Formats: sequence, structure tokens, C-alpha cells
Amino acid sequence: MSKNKTVYFCAGWFTDKQNKAYNEAMEAIKANPTVDVENSYVPLQHQYKGLRVDEHPELLEDREWAAATYNGDRVGVQTSDVIMAVYIPDEEDIGMGIELGMARALGKYNLIVIPDDEWGKPINLMTFGAGDNFIKLSELKDYDFNKPSFNFYDGAVY
Amino acid sequence: MSKNKTVYFCAGWFTDKQNKAYNEAMEAIKANPTVDVENSYVPLQHQYKGLRVDEHPELLEDREWAAATYNGDRVGVQTSDVIMAVYIPDEEDIGMGIELGMARALGKYNLIVIPDDEWGKPINLMTFGAGDNFIKLSELKDYDFNKPSFNFYDGAVY
Amino acid sequence: MSKNKTVYFCAGWFTDKQNKAYNEAMEAIKANPTVDVENSYVPLQHQYKGLRVDEHPELLEDREWAAATYNGDRVGVQTSDVIMAVYIPDEEDIGMGIELGMARALGKYNLIVIPDDEWGKPINLMTFGAGDNFIKLSELKDYDFNKPSFNFYDGAVY
Amino acid sequence: MSKNKTVYFCAGWFTDKQNKAYNEAMEAIKANPTVDVENSYVPLQHQYKGLRVDEHPELLEDREWAAATYNGDRVGVQTSDVIMAVYIPDEEDIGMGIELGMARALGKYNLIVIPDDEWGKPINLMTFGAGDNFIKLSELKDYDFNKPSFNFYDGAVY
Amino acid sequence: MSKNKTVYFCAGWFTDKQNKAYNEAMEAIKANPTVDVENSYVPLQHQYKGLRVDEHPELLEDREWAAATYNGDRVGVQTSDVIMAVYIPDEEDIGMGIELGMARALGKYNLIVIPDDEWGKPINLMTFGAGDNFIKLSELKDYDFNKPSFNFYDGAVY
Amino acid sequence: MSKNKTVYFCAGWFTDKQNKAYNEAMEAIKANPTVDVENSYVPLQHQYKGLRVDEHPELLEDREWAAATYNGDRVGVQTSDVIMAVYIPDEEDIGMGIELGMARALGKYNLIVIPDDEWGKPINLMTFGAGDNFIKLSELKDYDFNKPSFNFYDGAVY
Repeated sequence: MSKNKTVYFCAGWFTDKQNKAYNEAMEAIKANPTVDVENSYVPLQHQYKGLRVDEHPELLEDREWAAATYNGDRVGVQTSDVIMAVYIPDEEDIGMGIELGMARALGKYNLIVIPDDEWGKPINLMTFGAGDNFIKLSELKDYDFNKPSFNFYDGAVY
Repeated sequence: MSKNKTVYFCAGWFTDKQNKAYNEAMEAIKANPTVDVENSYVPLQHQYKGLRVDEHPELLEDREWAAATYNGDRVGVQTSDVIMAVYIPDEEDIGMGIELGMARALGKYNLIVIPDDEWGKPINLMTFGAGDNFIKLSELKDYDFNKPSFNFYDGAVY
Repeated sequence: MSKNKTVYFCAGWFTDKQNKAYNEAMEAIKANPTVDVENSYVPLQHQYKGLRVDEHPELLEDREWAAATYNGDRVGVQTSDVIMAVYIPDEEDIGMGIELGMARALGKYNLIVIPDDEWGKPINLMTFGAGDNFIKLSELKDYDFNKPSFNFYDGAVY
Repeated sequence: MSKNKTVYFCAGWFTDKQNKAYNEAMEAIKANPTVDVENSYVPLQHQYKGLRVDEHPELLEDREWAAATYNGDRVGVQTSDVIMAVYIPDEEDIGMGIELGMARALGKYNLIVIPDDEWGKPINLMTFGAGDNFIKLSELKDYDFNKPSFNFYDGAVY
Repeated sequence: MSKNKTVYFCAGWFTDKQNKAYNEAMEAIKANPTVDVENSYVPLQHQYKGLRVDEHPELLEDREWAAATYNGDRVGVQTSDVIMAVYIPDEEDIGMGIELGMARALGKYNLIVIPDDEWGKPINLMTFGAGDNFIKLSELKDYDFNKPSFNFYDGAVY
Repeated sequence: MSKNKTVYFCAGWFTDKQNKAYNEAMEAIKANPTVDVENSYVPLQHQYKGLRVDEHPELLEDREWAAATYNGDRVGVQTSDVIMAVYIPDEEDIGMGIELGMARALGKYNLIVIPDDEWGKPINLMTFGAGDNFIKLSELKDYDFNKPSFNFYDGAVY
């Protein structure tokens, strides 16, 4: 019976590329025996009171909703074993950045997963430094989350 | 004789909007007696060996350059009193996010400065939560950096 | 075979209300399959050399005893998955506060458990902010410690 | 011209003993040339929108007010050089505890100031450990905030 | 089926004493059912690209190799449950010190293991303070890693 | 009137090389207008009750003395602006390592100062990574402590 790890599922759901990568990454971790998907943290499932701002635009200026949803994501970062970022080099996202930065300063492990056809494209310098390892999306289903190790991004940095 | 604070000058220099805001913010802190501009950290002035990747594309895959420049920015965040982000809501930047996230977990003060004509536009939920205060660019020259306080963003969050 | 989490059992044992809540909370986590009670940290079981100050008043001014017992509790906070505070709103305790504050800055999960008949009473503003979730004591035996999430206190704050 | 330090003025204002100590401590730091009182953080002056819950009981359940006021105090702890707790041994306060615990984990200096006629009385074990130094209130006006050093509490611990 | 913990195996391999203790400690944790040896982090197995500087002296001045190997060890410290230092009092090592210091500030558990015939010899004052517990090498195979607790070093400190 | 910074003066006093470097470094910072020597933390001046273990061997096993002296140094690291290590490559010291490791995780700036005739000699890999900048002792008197920046060690790493 294998051990496994929880992940903070850090991924956008706003563009086609993001949605495609989101779904493929979700399938990959479900197939990966070293990930505890059931107890992992998926931000989209933790919007305060179950309300999403894209479906409820009246939340745009509701500070109670914003504060609670932000704190939900903060708790997700703090209580997960691994911050896993599904990363599209030319659609970088500031929210993902804040999560990676927090995670790094708190001593979490930051794993950056890049779709195969985006691999090698230039990424932001700060992601290069805040990431602890970088893999292709096709490698995700076999990645051993129980053996975190370090490597540089094998691609360009701007 | 007034006290003053050092800032980590966190701002993009890639688009017209960014450049305009960058220059205005720089002028504002020079005019602000509570900022110690001379000893503040401006990332653009700390590229490893003085080389910029936009002028030296051969650096794109040079890991020594990337690691050193990243570490320069990390040191800037750690040694400055305030992380000041010149923030364009519709041109959010992941590198800025990583700096804000790190700063928050280390206990630094995150000040978000938004150009007046962008004020109120939706910002990322994580910036809403990681920011300690939000002001308009026109307020920057008179902002008292010696009296950091908290406030919510007075605008939309997505 | 279910996963489970260790808790730092943060609770007073000085008043009748505290003792009653202490015992009920202990029974609840024993009945909760998502808690690893055996490996959880109960401060009362980690007094230095097995000596309790309430039974050995000569320890009141013994700095070696005090330093070691304090460090024991610090280690308990650092090595447990969850800081679980059994919280009586009108008998708040500064020691519990220090543990919650440390835990928050280190990125631990703070769960505040309030006896049902005390629920809704005013709690300190800092507990409101340092707590990651708030539940009734009757909910403790069924609370899923493997799925930490955020919520505000559903009661008053002073 | 002397250097000076900012303090987070951590003190209760709810009982007679607290108010007396509060006022004496405030006078003492005003007389102390190593404290920058003007730029210090006094929580009572940073209630969200200037509203105090003791004067506006309708705020008791207002989460926006509570979240903002909590964050104000968090910012105060993070941005001050020293956390100065005006400490009444038999009126310990959980909010002060959370501030001391956070401050310790973030690497701030915790100075515990005890009224002379309370000196030596038993204090909580966690304060003993989280405090970096302990002085009498009568010593405060001459304490050198520029030379922080460590000492144990010279009194009882329970 | 017992729970177990991962360790960061912090030990020198440069002198006879170190090698002997290294091997004995490795055997002990393999025999200890509360240690997950398979997923533990052994720095010697994570030299960048599998290259060791003692076998490849050309790496002495290779910054990419140095930065990556350092980051590997940093990741090991951050992702392991326990930092276990195999400690020879008269052959103290600065690298081990940096790992223990980082671990302490991040809230990890530092276990110092000393060969039986070295037990009691003077150790550095900072190790005394940064260590959370101290045991003899002969006790390692039976030590319960699931029940971390605090104790002072039972020997001399210089 | 120039700003200046406090340093934690991290240096051994046990060998001839160390004593020589210690004295030269002390002279250099006294001559450096960007260092606030008066308010800097020199561990040798903060031994608990003014007692040094090299002069009072009975302290070797006195835990109150050890705990207080350790905490003094911890406070020194936490409250100084810069951790300045006077570093002899072939006489590395574990206590210095613990201070550098703590400082790094807390976000302090680590400056490594190496005597000119030792410059370039191999240093420990962890110092390479935990150090933020490396300078020669002859450069110390002119180093601008108000402008902390990053650089790699320009020498060998083992």
C-alpha cells in the first residue's frame, strides 16, 4: 500500500489552453498512485458559500466573499504537501504567482507542470527561481510525489 | 529631519501602460520625503553583470545569469521595508505575484499602487488578499511610508 | 484504511468548564477516524521530567523546567498537522493565543472548537483572524481533518 | 541625533489596572528617546473606519469590520520593530498572546513590560518562552530599544 | 500497519568517524519501522546530474552545479518530516549547521544523534539551542519518530 | 547625515586566524559609515550574566546559562539588519552555520567576509547557497551596507 501526497491544484480555468491543461492534469493526478486526489485542494471547489464570481458578478465588490475565498486558497496552500502549478508560459497568472511565492517562503514544494507543446518557451524569471522542479504534463501521471527533488527549468527564462 | 523607508520597486517595463506608470511612480517616490529612494531596490538596476535579457537574448537559457538575477530580486524583497507594486489591473504579472507572495509570508508590507484611470477595475483575488493597502498613483507622492496601515481594495475582485 | 492527522491538543485544564470541554473533546477525537490520537501532542503529557507545576509549586521559579516545558509545547505546535483549540469564549487563555499565533505564522491549520452552549458568544478579534475554521464541539467527532477548509466564525467578535 | 525604534503598542484597555498601565506605558515611551512614538502602531487608533466595537455594538457581527481590524493589527505587528506588551500577570489576554506568537515566528523582538507592583507574579509558561526580555514598567522610560537583548523573566511561571 | 516519517539524512562522509557513524545510522533507520527510508532524502544521492565534487574536482568552480546541488539539499530540508543530524562533537560541520538553522526557522523537528562513545562531549552552543532532541546512536533504531518530543542535551556545551 | 545598518557580528575567537580576522573586521566596520557599530550585536558581549564558558568551565553543563546565551544569539540574529560572517574557509564553524541558516529562512541578509589571503579557497556548499554576498576583508570598510545586493562566491565550493 503506497503512501501519497496532497496537492494544491493551482491552475487557471479562463482560456481554452488553460481548460485543456486543467483537465489533462486532473486526469493525470487521478491516475498517479502517489497523489491523494481525494484530499487535495482544488480552489474552484472552495469558493465561499459555493458561489463563483464568474457566475455571480454581484460578488465582484463583496469584501466578505473576497476575504473568505482568498483565505480558503491561503489555507489550501498551507495545508497541502505540494503546490502543483499547471503552467502555460504565455498565459502566466498573478494569482498563481502569489501562491508560489507564499509556498516558497513557508517551505513548501513547488512543482511546475508545463504542457508538452509549450515546454521550453520562455517563463518569468521569478517562476524559474521559485519553482523547485519542472516537468512536462505527459510526465505527471508517473511523477513520484513521494520523492521531491530539485531541478532547473530546461527552457528559456525572460 | 524625517525618517524614511526603502522600497522594493516592483513594476513591469514591457508595455506602454507599464512604462508610463513606472516613470510616474518613480517620480512620485523621488518627491516623497518618507521614501529613501537612494537605497531602494530597483530590479532593473540589478540584472546579473549588468546584462538585460531583452538586450542579450543569449541569456535566455543561461542558468547562471537566471539564478543570480532571481536571487538579486529575492534579496531585494527581503531587505526592503516595503514592497511597492505598480499595478495595472489588466496587465497583471506573475513575477510581481511571486514577490508579493514571498513578502507576505516573510512579514513585509505590500503596498499596491494603481494608476488613477485604472482604479476600481477588477484585480486578481490573491492580490486582494496579499495586498496590505491599495492607493491611487496620484496619492503616492504624499503617502506616509512611515505609517503603514491596512485597507481593503476599493474596487472589484475577480 | 483511512488517512489521519495529528493534532496539537490545545486546551485548558483549570476550570470546570475547561475540564468538561477538555474531556468531551478528547472523547470526540478518539471517535474520529481522521485523527491520529496516538501520535497527537497533549501538552499535559509533556511536562518536563513528568512534573506538573500545579502539583509541584517549587517549579514555579525553576527556569530549566520552564524552558524545557515551553520548548516541548513549541515542538508540539511545530510537528502537529493541526492546532486544535478547545475554546471557551469567556475563559480565553494567553498560552493558547501564543500557540495559535505561532502556528499561523508557520503555516499550520488552526481549528477552533467551541462548546455548543458557548457558540456565538463574543470572541477576541485576534482569534477571529488567526483561526482558520470554527466548529461546535458536537461536530468534532465527525469533522474531516483530511479536508481542511476556511470559514469565518459564525458569532460575535469584540 | 539618536536612532529610534517603532513599537507595536500591545495593551488592553478594558480594566482599571489595564488602563492605568496603558497610560503609564504611553507616557514612558514618549519620554524615551530610543522610541519613535510618532510612527509606532497603537491598535486603538487603527479600528476599521475609526469605529470601535465597544462604542458600536452593531459591529460585533460585522465580518468586514472584523477582518479589516484584525488585518490592521497583523500589519502593525509585521511592520513594527518591537512588540511591546504591557502585561498584567493576572489579567492575561489571548489577543496579546496571538500577537506575541506571530511576532516570535516572524523573528520580531518581544518585550514584556510588567507594572512594578505586579512584578514577580506567576505568568503563563508560553509568555515565559515567547518573551525575549522582561522589564518593570518603571524601567521603560530608560530602556534602550536600540540594544535588544535576551533575559529570562525574574519571577514565577505557571 | 504503522505510520512512519521521512528524514533528511544530515551526515558527513569525509572522515573515518563520520563514515562509521553514517553507516551505523543508515542501518538503524532501516531497522526502525517509524522511518520511511525509501522516501527519505540522502544528500549524497542528490548531487546535480549525479556528479560528486570529490570525484569531479572540475565542479569546484561550476556555479550551475553548486546552485543546483545546494537547492537540492534545501528542498530536502523543506520536504522531510525530520532533520536527523548524525553528529560528531569534535568534527562539527558548517553545512549541517546551515541545515539545522533553516529547519528550525521553518518549524521542522531537529533530532541530533551522537555516537555512544562521543556522548557527553562538548557541543556548540547553537546546536544545543537549535536541536529539539538529542539521542545516542544505539537508541536510534528504537526511537519513535511518530512521537517527537523535546529534551536538552545531557552533556557539555561550549 | 548617512543612514546605517546594524550587524550581527558572527565570528570565531578560538584560533589565531580567527582572532586576527575578528579584530580586522571589527576595525573595518568601525571605519565604515554605513554600519551602526554602537547598536550592533557582538555575541561575546552577550554571554549570560557576563560569564564566558572558556573562563568558567563550570558552565559547560549549566543549562540555564546555555539556554539564555543561545537565546541571546538568536535575538541578535533576529534583530540585526545584516548577518556578517567573518569566514575562514578551512576553519568553518557549525555555530556560524546555524546562525546563517536561521537568518536565511527569516529573510535576513547574509554577508560573508573572507580574509584576502583565504579568498578563493573551497567553502562548504551550504554556505555558497545561504550566503547572499561574498566580499574580501579588505573591501569591508568601504562596503555599502545600505545597498545590499546578491552575488555568487567567486571561488571554489566543495
